[in-house]
Amino acid sequence: MAEPLALGIDIGGTGVKLGLVDRNGRISSLRKMPTPKGVPAIQAAEAIAEEASKLVGAVQASRLTGVGVGVAGDIDSQAGVVRMSPNLGWRQVPIRRLLANALGRPVLVENDANVAAWAAFRVEAKARVRNLLCVTLGTGIGGGIVVDGRLYRGATGTAGEIGHTTLDPNGHPCACGNRGCLERYVGARAMSEEARRAIKGGEKSQIAKLVKGDLSKIEPLIVQRAARQGDRLAKRLWKDAGERLGISLASMVNVLNPDWIVLSGGLSRAGGLLLDPVRRMIKERSFQAPARAVKLVISRLDQDLGTVGAALLAHDSFN
Amino acid sequence: MAEPLALGIDIGGTGVKLGLVDRNGRISSLRKMPTPKGVPAIQAAEAIAEEASKLVGAVQASRLTGVGVGVAGDIDSQAGVVRMSPNLGWRQVPIRRLLANALGRPVLVENDANVAAWAAFRVEAKARVRNLLCVTLGTGIGGGIVVDGRLYRGATGTAGEIGHTTLDPNGHPCACGNRGCLERYVGARAMSEEARRAIKGGEKSQIAKLVKGDLSKIEPLIVQRAARQGDRLAKRLWKDAGERLGISLASMVNVLNPDWIVLSGGLSRAGGLLLDPVRRMIKERSFQAPARAVKLVISRLDQDLGTVGAALLAHDSFN
Repeated sequence: MAEPLALGIDIGGTGVKLGLVDRNGRISSLRKMPTPKGVPAIQAAEAIAEEASKLVGAVQASRLTGVGVGVAGDIDSQAGVVRMSPNLGWRQVPIRRLLANALGRPVLVENDANVAAWAAFRVEAKARVRNLLCVTLGTGIGGGIVVDGRLYRGATGTAGEIGHTTLDPNGHPCACGNRGCLERYVGARAMSEEARRAIKGGEKSQIAKLVKGDLSKIEPLIVQRAARQGDRLAKRLWKDAGERLGISLASMVNVLNPDWIVLSGGLSRAGGLLLDPVRRMIKERSFQAPARAVKLVISRLDQDLGTVGAALLAHDSFN
Repeated sequence: MAEPLALGIDIGGTGVKLGLVDRNGRISSLRKMPTPKGVPAIQAAEAIAEEASKLVGAVQASRLTGVGVGVAGDIDSQAGVVRMSPNLGWRQVPIRRLLANALGRPVLVENDANVAAWAAFRVEAKARVRNLLCVTLGTGIGGGIVVDGRLYRGATGTAGEIGHTTLDPNGHPCACGNRGCLERYVGARAMSEEARRAIKGGEKSQIAKLVKGDLSKIEPLIVQRAARQGDRLAKRLWKDAGERLGISLASMVNVLNPDWIVLSGGLSRAGGLLLDPVRRMIKERSFQAPARAVKLVISRLDQDLGTVGAALLAHDSFN
């Protein structure tokens, strides 16, 4: 008998990724489309359903376990509703019903960092650990938690939002309403802003050369390249990012005491530039036993974490 | 048939409390003793076992489910060993084996804040919520977490140590090795120190009168009384404590997304003096959905939380 497949859909702020995934997390076919913008949510969902049916249509009905959807935002996974997604401009969108009607298959909806955590747990940790924290370092910072081998959602599905824990109580205002959130200090947006500010303030740096003076082009990959060339500002930016992330993760080590912390997303690709200061902070700031126990891992799935995690959650929920 | 009982033992830095407890968390008999000090851990354990056998001896063997022990410190609950308890001066003490040998009953050992969380979950929340954070505000700050109706220990039994999460990255050094831990700013020790510093610095306050000038006598209850009399310093100390605790709890609301947060211990008895600023911080700093969902509760069991929780954990583990 052909191996069962699930469809995973990762709906992000710029693109949608859809993939047929087996029970081990292997993608057999993948489609991408730009996130439909400037249209009502219901039309966007229809466009996504149309793309999804191209994949679903090619699979024998009995072989398809179901559909998992990961969305950046505040998700009511029980009701299958996107309560609010600032990146998509969605509010109260019953995405589960819309997709289930169009595809005739069971659908589940979950926060994008939660499905990423599920993929990290199932594929990268091979479900051999009990407790895991997955942190997505993209434009902002997301997080998902696995506790005792199960995805931990909390009372309203919000659990894991480490990007919106307070790093500096008197710090910069954050769009979420808080001040001094970790996300204001670590991430692609924060790093690019800081680089621009320093360069505009007169600091000499290779970064300016690498973007040929167009400071709007600064992004973590550029800062990474400059750091590898020994640039002082670039090295400082990575050290600061790693230390700040490390301070927050050290607190999480004492509160969540995870077996693994998995880092993914743009910033995680910098390897040691980010990891070394993170490791040092955990060693300096966490209790000894949990600091020794925790394994810090950079995700290999990375860009596919959302698609694979959404599909695996469907496999594990509908079977 | 007589209702089953379990023995709960709460071993704290100053006193030991032992109680026979039924499956609903009601204490039928209670004994107290000062914590044996200045003797090897093995002798201390023998003294506790002797006191315990007085309670156990009065109960029909078939009626006693088992023994639960809560200890302040770093506990290996799987091995039944106190890895380290600074308050007791214990290191690598196999307390489970020592008590099981003396009492001839199954024994479990757990961190004191974890058993407190279990009592809060079972008795105060009547096991009707899924996820709960219990914070003990004593000399320092402890914490325990219930996830999906189960005590959450993490990889090494450390989970829940909210007292040792970073409130101020550049703050005061903490005995744990970190800087700026919440515990350095909130708790009986922190509050008394701050009061003394302000009064010695020349600030006028009722607090000095209430302790008749003996500043070593300052404790939260005194500061509470002064605040009720309208004393400015006292009111500020409570506002600061509540806001600082609230900033940390607001982060926990976004990460753990609990149904309930239960506060216990000395500081929690101040009621609104502490709770009002805590509530305000959660409202201002957490995401809306989890902030609305979380219920903030002051423990009624309070002083008995450890004894009852340890016994209930024995009921729930040995049955």
